[in-house]
Amino acid sequence: MLGKLVGVGVGPGDPGLVTVKACEVLRVVGVICAPKARHERPSIALNAVKPFLEMRRNHPKILELVFPMIKDRRELEKAWKINAEAIMTELKAGQDVAFITLGDPLFYSTFIYVYRVIAKAYPELRVEVVPGVTSITACAAASKMPIAEADDAVAVVPADLSPARIYEIAKNVDTIIFVKGIDNPAEMVESLLKGGFTRDSPLVFVKKCGGEVEEIKTGILKELQSWRVEDYFSTIIVKKRTGDAE
Amino acid sequence: MLGKLVGVGVGPGDPGLVTVKACEVLRVVGVICAPKARHERPSIALNAVKPFLEMRRNHPKILELVFPMIKDRRELEKAWKINAEAIMTELKAGQDVAFITLGDPLFYSTFIYVYRVIAKAYPELRVEVVPGVTSITACAAASKMPIAEADDAVAVVPADLSPARIYEIAKNVDTIIFVKGIDNPAEMVESLLKGGFTRDSPLVFVKKCGGEVEEIKTGILKELQSWRVEDYFSTIIVKKRTGDAE
Repeated sequence: MLGKLVGVGVGPGDPGLVTVKACEVLRVVGVICAPKARHERPSIALNAVKPFLEMRRNHPKILELVFPMIKDRRELEKAWKINAEAIMTELKAGQDVAFITLGDPLFYSTFIYVYRVIAKAYPELRVEVVPGVTSITACAAASKMPIAEADDAVAVVPADLSPARIYEIAKNVDTIIFVKGIDNPAEMVESLLKGGFTRDSPLVFVKKCGGEVEEIKTGILKELQSWRVEDYFSTIIVKKRTGDAE
Repeated sequence: MLGKLVGVGVGPGDPGLVTVKACEVLRVVGVICAPKARHERPSIALNAVKPFLEMRRNHPKILELVFPMIKDRRELEKAWKINAEAIMTELKAGQDVAFITLGDPLFYSTFIYVYRVIAKAYPELRVEVVPGVTSITACAAASKMPIAEADDAVAVVPADLSPARIYEIAKNVDTIIFVKGIDNPAEMVESLLKGGFTRDSPLVFVKKCGGEVEEIKTGILKELQSWRVEDYFSTIIVKKRTGDAE
């Protein structure tokens, strides 16, 4: 019988933010797939669960799969297919496979792509998803800045949305969160100001490195233009208004 | 010395979705504050962590605090103040206090309000926040519907935003998530259609009851108008386009 595929969110990188259920899955599953960006680099997701794997008596098979961080759609699809095939080989052998991802498996994660390829090949596949803590709530927790309260609307955007779209979104929400850094902070500040944010709008910036928090900065919007926030593993939360708590 | 205040996110209600760090805090802390909506009802957040409290040898003091689900700002502030004072009494006695919340402490949570009152009274207060899994990723996991991928923009909105604002937001995002149910689904569908969603846009609806999933429904946008989705503990995720995976 075909093994079961389990997408396991392991949180932002700190082993303490792995859930009880994720630990339970990782304690018994036969095969663990861990995505990473490059062959020569360790998997950050795997690092986050290492303490729990070390407690196991029988060691799982670990497949580190490379998902290159590129934009070329054809190259990406090739990588998804190769990785999906490696997973399918295990599933066909009757092995249950846990695919671990940083954050949550269904929120900007590589799990979505391999899951899609595999589900197409095996419509009868049993799939389970264990949700995880995202970098967003972890970023807020690190700085103690509330993300949203009462009737606040929130937008989550990847870095490279057009200034026009950022402006339209900014106009209609109370909090805006950039989940993959900001390439052009000066332009972004411009769009947010036009959209009703102010130069004093509070913000927090958290940069991760290898799963660890490397830098936390809190400040106000006008300062953002001079910050280096383009790193892909950065999260930036900007609030339109200063809450009483800040 | 003043005790430490720890905001602890316990996830969407399933004890399996509590994090390792939350368990660690709850295993040693002297006082646990658990919010609830009514005197006669049990605290859902407390329910989610019961299995971990039962493992303790020395039982913690448990304060169940009532935060009424009302809109009247004055009445709300009164409740925040009363509850903050109960917590401050413990802190002043040198006790560390864990304030547990469903989901995450800084994402539409009562923790924000009491934290604000207490931090104003004690600027020197040591505060820590343990982030949690939100109902959003839990809702996606239950249905296996991806929330966002690649350059998708996402909006999170409480139920009672105006149709005009919903329309503007819908125009500029790929996924829209309603976190406190939808009061008028027919009107909401109208706004989403005007904003570029289609009658076939895929959606998932998850209704919780006492922390347990009571109902999961997947479907398409045109069906939403006939669904009963007004419950406060409902999460609805609507995607503009059908991904390959659905």
